[in-house]
Amino acid sequence: MPAKQPVAIVFDTFGTVVDWRGSLIAELTAFGHKRDIEADWAALVDAWRRAYHPSMDRVRKGEQKWTILDDLHRSSLDRLVREFGIEGLNEDDLRHINLGWHRLNPWPDSVPGLTRLKRRYIIGPLSNGNVALLTKMGKHAGLPWDVIFGSDLFGHYKPDPETYLGVARLLGLEPSQVMMAAAHNSDLGHARRAGLMTAFFPRPNEYGPHQIRDFTAEQDWDVVAADIEDLAGKLGA
Amino acid sequence: MPAKQPVAIVFDTFGTVVDWRGSLIAELTAFGHKRDIEADWAALVDAWRRAYHPSMDRVRKGEQKWTILDDLHRSSLDRLVREFGIEGLNEDDLRHINLGWHRLNPWPDSVPGLTRLKRRYIIGPLSNGNVALLTKMGKHAGLPWDVIFGSDLFGHYKPDPETYLGVARLLGLEPSQVMMAAAHNSDLGHARRAGLMTAFFPRPNEYGPHQIRDFTAEQDWDVVAADIEDLAGKLGA
Repeated sequence: MPAKQPVAIVFDTFGTVVDWRGSLIAELTAFGHKRDIEADWAALVDAWRRAYHPSMDRVRKGEQKWTILDDLHRSSLDRLVREFGIEGLNEDDLRHINLGWHRLNPWPDSVPGLTRLKRRYIIGPLSNGNVALLTKMGKHAGLPWDVIFGSDLFGHYKPDPETYLGVARLLGLEPSQVMMAAAHNSDLGHARRAGLMTAFFPRPNEYGPHQIRDFTAEQDWDVVAADIEDLAGKLGA
Repeated sequence: MPAKQPVAIVFDTFGTVVDWRGSLIAELTAFGHKRDIEADWAALVDAWRRAYHPSMDRVRKGEQKWTILDDLHRSSLDRLVREFGIEGLNEDDLRHINLGWHRLNPWPDSVPGLTRLKRRYIIGPLSNGNVALLTKMGKHAGLPWDVIFGSDLFGHYKPDPETYLGVARLLGLEPSQVMMAAAHNSDLGHARRAGLMTAFFPRPNEYGPHQIRDFTAEQDWDVVAADIEDLAGKLGA
């Protein structure tokens, strides 16, 4: 256990708690079969995720006014459907596909690990997803969150410090009483600069065969674990 | 069941889900015994609650800048401790007493009723409490919320429409897809004017012997129930 313990632990979600890539590829492949629509769904999902950071960065740099992630996802999807030449999708289909981000499945250790941590700590997501997305994802995946921190509460995307500091403010805590848990070293670096505690565990299959980083901890994070169950054990929960 | 069903149900908390009066009187009486401090704790609690609406109204009218409920509670407590002539309380005591609002106990039907409703609906508090207060109350009382809507997310206290409409916005829903549930006709009147669905159930002992209103439904609310378990039954959960 670290010498000092947090009061609250907030989790990155996409990749850290839920398997966005596996979930979306499985759902879209099934959808394509059912509707007899031919496409390289895995490539679409990978391209969709590659559009994620650039789309948020336009908002972060002020090139685009505040836009929730659901709407950034939709703009990227519309563009990619054209680029991939996918035919036969109507507006209801596109809306359904876009809300696939609300129906992501957890990694096997996520629900048991969070359930243990919840006994001892306040737990919630701190994600670039919006509150609606994270709330519905929580219900779909059975994530036992105490509270939901979506980027729309702050009008900022991570890694803007307003997100990490916003959690501490809303919980009435010092930043040092809040731990950021993520499978991404970069997220933790920004959280640490904002004064938060940090916990890392790897998700080496997040990007499937395209994973190129985050196989190991790159700084001396307060806790380094194998997964969320191991994190619970290391935090005495 | 009403002809139309909501997607999300948000609950007033103080009095509706938790028994603030019984909880605070019990806690303060025990505290007084333990510390050998003599006071009319029941009268203090009733006076504290009477200060609630006036303190928020000063914020709502712009006479005071945005202040979270924890801090309004503390200002009122400091004044009342002087007025009641209670001696021997240090800063830690006052802080502990003030956070009694984070440790309120549920009515007997609250946890079983909410647990049933959660299977079918998104559920959360929509309270004048701040996020920290509501999150800790949820953990203390075992309230199985999906999401926490505190007044500090909106910078407004109920019955300002920004609170009711803010829930719909954050959940990506139309106001008519959100149901406000409360034991207070006035709260529901404002929610209805903002376009929300409404559910009433009475809490005839909320104010103990001082209760003078809200024994029955005063409008044709979408659902009128006996308590939260009955509400779950009437909403098919």
